[in-house]
Amino acid sequence: MEVPPPLVLKRPLYVPSKTLMGPGPSNCSHRVLEAMSNPVLGHMHPECLQIMDEVKEGIKYIFQTLNDATMCISGAGHSGMEAALCNLIEDGDVVLMGITGVWGHRAGDMARRYGAEVHYVEASFGRSLSHEEITFAFEAHRPKVFFIAQGDSSTGIIQQNIRELGELCRKYDCFLIVDTVASLGGTEFLMDEWKVDVAYTGSQKSLGGPAGLTPISFSKRALTRIRKRKTKPKVYYFDILLIGQYWGCYGTPRIYHHTISSTLLYGLREALAHFCAVGLKAVVRRHQECSKRLQLGIEELGLEMFVSREDERLPTVNTIKVPFGVDWKKVAEYAMRKYSVEISGGLGPTVEHVFRIGLMGENATVERVDMVLSILNEAIQSSKLGIKKDLSKI
Amino acid sequence: MEVPPPLVLKRPLYVPSKTLMGPGPSNCSHRVLEAMSNPVLGHMHPECLQIMDEVKEGIKYIFQTLNDATMCISGAGHSGMEAALCNLIEDGDVVLMGITGVWGHRAGDMARRYGAEVHYVEASFGRSLSHEEITFAFEAHRPKVFFIAQGDSSTGIIQQNIRELGELCRKYDCFLIVDTVASLGGTEFLMDEWKVDVAYTGSQKSLGGPAGLTPISFSKRALTRIRKRKTKPKVYYFDILLIGQYWGCYGTPRIYHHTISSTLLYGLREALAHFCAVGLKAVVRRHQECSKRLQLGIEELGLEMFVSREDERLPTVNTIKVPFGVDWKKVAEYAMRKYSVEISGGLGPTVEHVFRIGLMGENATVERVDMVLSILNEAIQSSKLGIKKDLSKI
Repeated sequence: MEVPPPLVLKRPLYVPSKTLMGPGPSNCSHRVLEAMSNPVLGHMHPECLQIMDEVKEGIKYIFQTLNDATMCISGAGHSGMEAALCNLIEDGDVVLMGITGVWGHRAGDMARRYGAEVHYVEASFGRSLSHEEITFAFEAHRPKVFFIAQGDSSTGIIQQNIRELGELCRKYDCFLIVDTVASLGGTEFLMDEWKVDVAYTGSQKSLGGPAGLTPISFSKRALTRIRKRKTKPKVYYFDILLIGQYWGCYGTPRIYHHTISSTLLYGLREALAHFCAVGLKAVVRRHQECSKRLQLGIEELGLEMFVSREDERLPTVNTIKVPFGVDWKKVAEYAMRKYSVEISGGLGPTVEHVFRIGLMGENATVERVDMVLSILNEAIQSSKLGIKKDLSKI
Repeated sequence: MEVPPPLVLKRPLYVPSKTLMGPGPSNCSHRVLEAMSNPVLGHMHPECLQIMDEVKEGIKYIFQTLNDATMCISGAGHSGMEAALCNLIEDGDVVLMGITGVWGHRAGDMARRYGAEVHYVEASFGRSLSHEEITFAFEAHRPKVFFIAQGDSSTGIIQQNIRELGELCRKYDCFLIVDTVASLGGTEFLMDEWKVDVAYTGSQKSLGGPAGLTPISFSKRALTRIRKRKTKPKVYYFDILLIGQYWGCYGTPRIYHHTISSTLLYGLREALAHFCAVGLKAVVRRHQECSKRLQLGIEELGLEMFVSREDERLPTVNTIKVPFGVDWKKVAEYAMRKYSVEISGGLGPTVEHVFRIGLMGENATVERVDMVLSILNEAIQSSKLGIKKDLSKI
């Protein structure tokens, strides 16, 4: 019995060009895309290590940190969540998850697998968590680790009080993990000043890099705790002491841990270089201005933002209520079919309730905002027309 | 305290072109490199899912399997090792690791972290494991999982008796994991016929794809066991039931698990397409012929292969004894400095003892064999000359 070569692989690769204005990935610039056609380098070659060093410096800048333990996990954004939890959690540790959408639940699933006792503190629907809600949960559970997403891409909610949470965690001898996958570049984030213990972000969102490498940083305090673990972290692949050794974080000789993708490194390096050249503050300002413009446009179209409080809206992933009687799927399909523009539906608690419009990286421009508003309007009108036609048939 | 943007990112990206004839990664073809400059696709877009389907068919072909649970892990080759162990192991399970180099020890480290009771069966230095040695260890430990690398890239040893090990594992009600990272494409591998339960391979070796996505396949028997686990696999990111759902393996609707790198998918798809077009048997034949030619040349140069038995030599990663009085590092440096050709030193037990010459994918050609032989000879002569000069100074 022989398995024959598949016919589908005789056809050429087909990749259409789209404008990705969903919750991510976002489009990469030509600079980033072209970089990824560079020849492959060995994972221990000095030129590859040099690029890793450059990427490391870029990550320190975007997180505003001086942490030695700053590197990438070779995996999707979720591998950053895994690495953060895996290194901090030991069997029986109490972990508290802040919930403003789906990601706290995801982190809870991961943490339970690592043997943690997991508790949740959940925000009211469409709101971020107040300091009081979180303090109450700290009092009740006395967590060793607290997880929160600065921006939850499923709801478009931003958690503004990270600075206070840093203080709170110190007071309770707790470690603070902040997921900045969807938020970084769209809002301020000061890792060291805010006393965040672990932060990670997505490469394929505001950063405009390729998916597959996940920037992460551990505070000295977190590192000390990890060095004092009674047991090894449960996953070799996510062991930050070993990965950091490969990334040259600890001043010790670099030791092979895994084969990093040089291709993705090139792309991420160029994305970081662009980000750094523009400057963090300018990047954040642009994302915020674009989101404001979008929100204004949404209002003008007679639509409503899902997050009622303006200061709780994530500028990068904007959630808009699906108007009564409109089929979100038809709207998204119309935008994709006619304009190759991605407008996304909801996720988790917001499924069927919202459109999600991403304004990230290359797509955080005034032109793109105006374009997506015009397409959204046209798509909604067209879908209403469809309904009228359907009704007239009755 | 503000962290300034790093100066190193103001410089242009520097990527030299090298001929990678170490143990991997190997060079990618222009077709593969160019594919990776294609625009990014969303991880749930139909065109992306289509490419995943094509990749899946390609993987079934290269493994010679009809397994539904065939997919990629979004990570380096090591993530394949993690996923294989993570899904099969529950706390207290007895796992046996076959050792012909370093990879069995690595797998042992991972398995212990997952809570397994780990035992080892170690081959004599420079040899593969005999059926008797393995059977003896099976009798002694009665493992639930047995791990073996078909090719160990640290020693250049090939384990030829996988077919018999498949039978043995069935007899002992044990699950067989075969690491084909370094061997696939360089030697026969028949997953279904040989009754292998889990196989994974490297994308960046004979396949000629980019690093960062790891092809993996689980037998129906393995899947049944995984579905009957008492506890969830310890790592969400490696949970094959969830990843397989995203990859459309089980006939259920596709559900988002993580953001796959579309860029890497393009590269892997094109590498697989080329591999399938040439055909498995022709690819294997070419790798074997190249290795034979290299071995002959090594003999003609008065050098010696590390693996004494010809039938135990891995064709893809060839290990050559470093001649007495020669500094392997100087030889490797010479080849890189003068010709931008990578010749590697040893790893683990072979450190300082061997050169490793990879003949994989694009580099498994007669021209490359002759080139690397000529460079190796020149580099060794030059290093000897260096010693003579040093001696004359005394």
